[in-house]
Amino acid sequence: MSSKNAREFLMIPGPTPVPDRVLAAIARHPLGHRSQDFSDVLMEAIDGLKWLGETNNEPLILTSSGTGAMEGAIANVVERGDKVLSLVCGVFGERFARIAEAYGAEVERLSVPFGKPVDVDAVRQALDADKEKKIKAVTITHNETSTGVINDLKQIAALIQKHGALSLVDAVTSFGATPVPIDEWGLDIVVTGSQKALMLPPGLAFAFVSQKAWQAIESCKTPRFYFKFQSYRKSQKERTTPFTPNVSFVVGLNESIKMMKEEGKEEVFARHTAMRELLRKGAKDLGLRLVVDDQCASPTITSIWPPEHMDVPTIRKRLKEQHRIVVADGQEELKGKIFRMGHMGYVFERDIGTALFALKAVLGAGAPAACR
Amino acid sequence: MSSKNAREFLMIPGPTPVPDRVLAAIARHPLGHRSQDFSDVLMEAIDGLKWLGETNNEPLILTSSGTGAMEGAIANVVERGDKVLSLVCGVFGERFARIAEAYGAEVERLSVPFGKPVDVDAVRQALDADKEKKIKAVTITHNETSTGVINDLKQIAALIQKHGALSLVDAVTSFGATPVPIDEWGLDIVVTGSQKALMLPPGLAFAFVSQKAWQAIESCKTPRFYFKFQSYRKSQKERTTPFTPNVSFVVGLNESIKMMKEEGKEEVFARHTAMRELLRKGAKDLGLRLVVDDQCASPTITSIWPPEHMDVPTIRKRLKEQHRIVVADGQEELKGKIFRMGHMGYVFERDIGTALFALKAVLGAGAPAACR
Repeated sequence: MSSKNAREFLMIPGPTPVPDRVLAAIARHPLGHRSQDFSDVLMEAIDGLKWLGETNNEPLILTSSGTGAMEGAIANVVERGDKVLSLVCGVFGERFARIAEAYGAEVERLSVPFGKPVDVDAVRQALDADKEKKIKAVTITHNETSTGVINDLKQIAALIQKHGALSLVDAVTSFGATPVPIDEWGLDIVVTGSQKALMLPPGLAFAFVSQKAWQAIESCKTPRFYFKFQSYRKSQKERTTPFTPNVSFVVGLNESIKMMKEEGKEEVFARHTAMRELLRKGAKDLGLRLVVDDQCASPTITSIWPPEHMDVPTIRKRLKEQHRIVVADGQEELKGKIFRMGHMGYVFERDIGTALFALKAVLGAGAPAACR
Repeated sequence: MSSKNAREFLMIPGPTPVPDRVLAAIARHPLGHRSQDFSDVLMEAIDGLKWLGETNNEPLILTSSGTGAMEGAIANVVERGDKVLSLVCGVFGERFARIAEAYGAEVERLSVPFGKPVDVDAVRQALDADKEKKIKAVTITHNETSTGVINDLKQIAALIQKHGALSLVDAVTSFGATPVPIDEWGLDIVVTGSQKALMLPPGLAFAFVSQKAWQAIESCKTPRFYFKFQSYRKSQKERTTPFTPNVSFVVGLNESIKMMKEEGKEEVFARHTAMRELLRKGAKDLGLRLVVDDQCASPTITSIWPPEHMDVPTIRKRLKEQHRIVVADGQEELKGKIFRMGHMGYVFERDIGTALFALKAVLGAGAPAACR
């Protein structure tokens, strides 16, 4: 039975499925970026992002991938020789640390084994030990895409605030899927990207900047131009952008935020939690082991160990060939060892049902009893 | 007579009109960026760009605006204290100089009054005077978007090659509209963007890098991450990208290059030259004065002085309101003093006819005799 003509279903942690309404919005002829029409579109996007992040901090709209916004978070506050504490629980936490190192920061890593969340007590100790307040910034990954761990950002942010350092938060695979109340949690720079829970293709990134962060940014001498946050703030005050933005995707963003408003923010977040629970239960019922414990399991990405009788490449190949469902491999040291299923953005409980059905089918004969 | 429902026609120097075929390609559901399918798309795009630039230098595909690629050209070769010669004949030449300054370069500017091309003799003298070969790089704008001047890049590049410095070329509004034979002219880093003659919306940028430039890049210590050219080269060798790219626009790029291949590269270039001639003749026939002399007039942008009886804001407003044609204002010191008509990419001679018809209509009564 062939599934060749089935629409490809992306269950990877980005790009994620894009609603037809958003695709149609993107396919509109581009607006001139200096037009009144585009100014209106831009302001609507800014308002929508503030609504989603529950914040008065204005989001800067960057034409880049999320990594560009992460670099912006570093380049705008960190100078050569500054001390940065990097909380690392996977590939993207490590990337944040490496960006800081690329800018000459003295980086102290607090690492945990893969699949584990950042150790809050260790963060407390590291910050308490810094009596001279040398740590200028702390990098943290809210939701670690490489393993499917969500960190206790609220608690960690409170510790950072108490210390006085700036919190630089990678919320690329959490923002829009789970609450990131920026003002309530006191987050200084929060970055995210378009191709995750925001239901767009990759191509835009966003950075929310607090008043405290702006002070650091104003005095930061690190060379920067395209990601110079002040240029975006200045232009956005004038209802425009410093460089030609991806106007098409900003139009698309307004459509996706409109859809989230129609569904309701709390409902969107609850849907992601429900999908996590459904997938985790379903995988366990198939006799599969999950990489991450329940209490720190991501609402957007679930990592699964392969069963003994079938390796990761075979599972991924069969899901793709037999059902046109694309799931992700592990990254770096986990490559070939785990597979990851993304469930963020335009994904619904019935899609988890589809994925579980397909997973059961491809595991087939030879699978643990529960799979048959 | 209302034109309210007419399709907006962008005659600005970017974003430019996007063909329906390209819009349809962009509106396809995004591919996973680590898929075999996307690898094939990426390699096709690289081949297409090499064909257009007549080069064996591999183009790096960046998700950013053209300014991001300009910053990449600087950040990958220029270190604090390096001497850079910047050839400035308008806003974008000045931007290149400012990016170099943001990275701590000691910038020497060779400037000319607006509307004039870079003075080749002055370039020769400046390079000859640099007996100690302190100038590491020369920034040059091939086609100056703010005025509509095209510089004699071939001759200037030869002088730079003779000196030994690196040529860093902003070809944002020339590449794809007029020949930029990268290898034949010996250009070291050539940057361009998607939203000009390449007939896409804004969102992608490209950098072609020569062997000589790679040597400088390898030894350059300037902090950089998202625009670190080595990361793109390494990934592209493995048929992928270092960060999540705008997969949708890479698919669109292949469609637009396919269209250019169908039309023929020489025919595309000839069409741009013909449009320039037609517009310049038509504007003169209407009694309007052109900002730029014939011998350095851009094939993609034409700047025009307003007639005595009507100012620039009125002309732009009437073209937009009465005919839904958008033309650009002057930039910075030329704001409100000139208007600029873009004619690059998906624009044909009949569109120039349309624009001239509308221009004649809006100038209306009170215009010089030739307009009535």
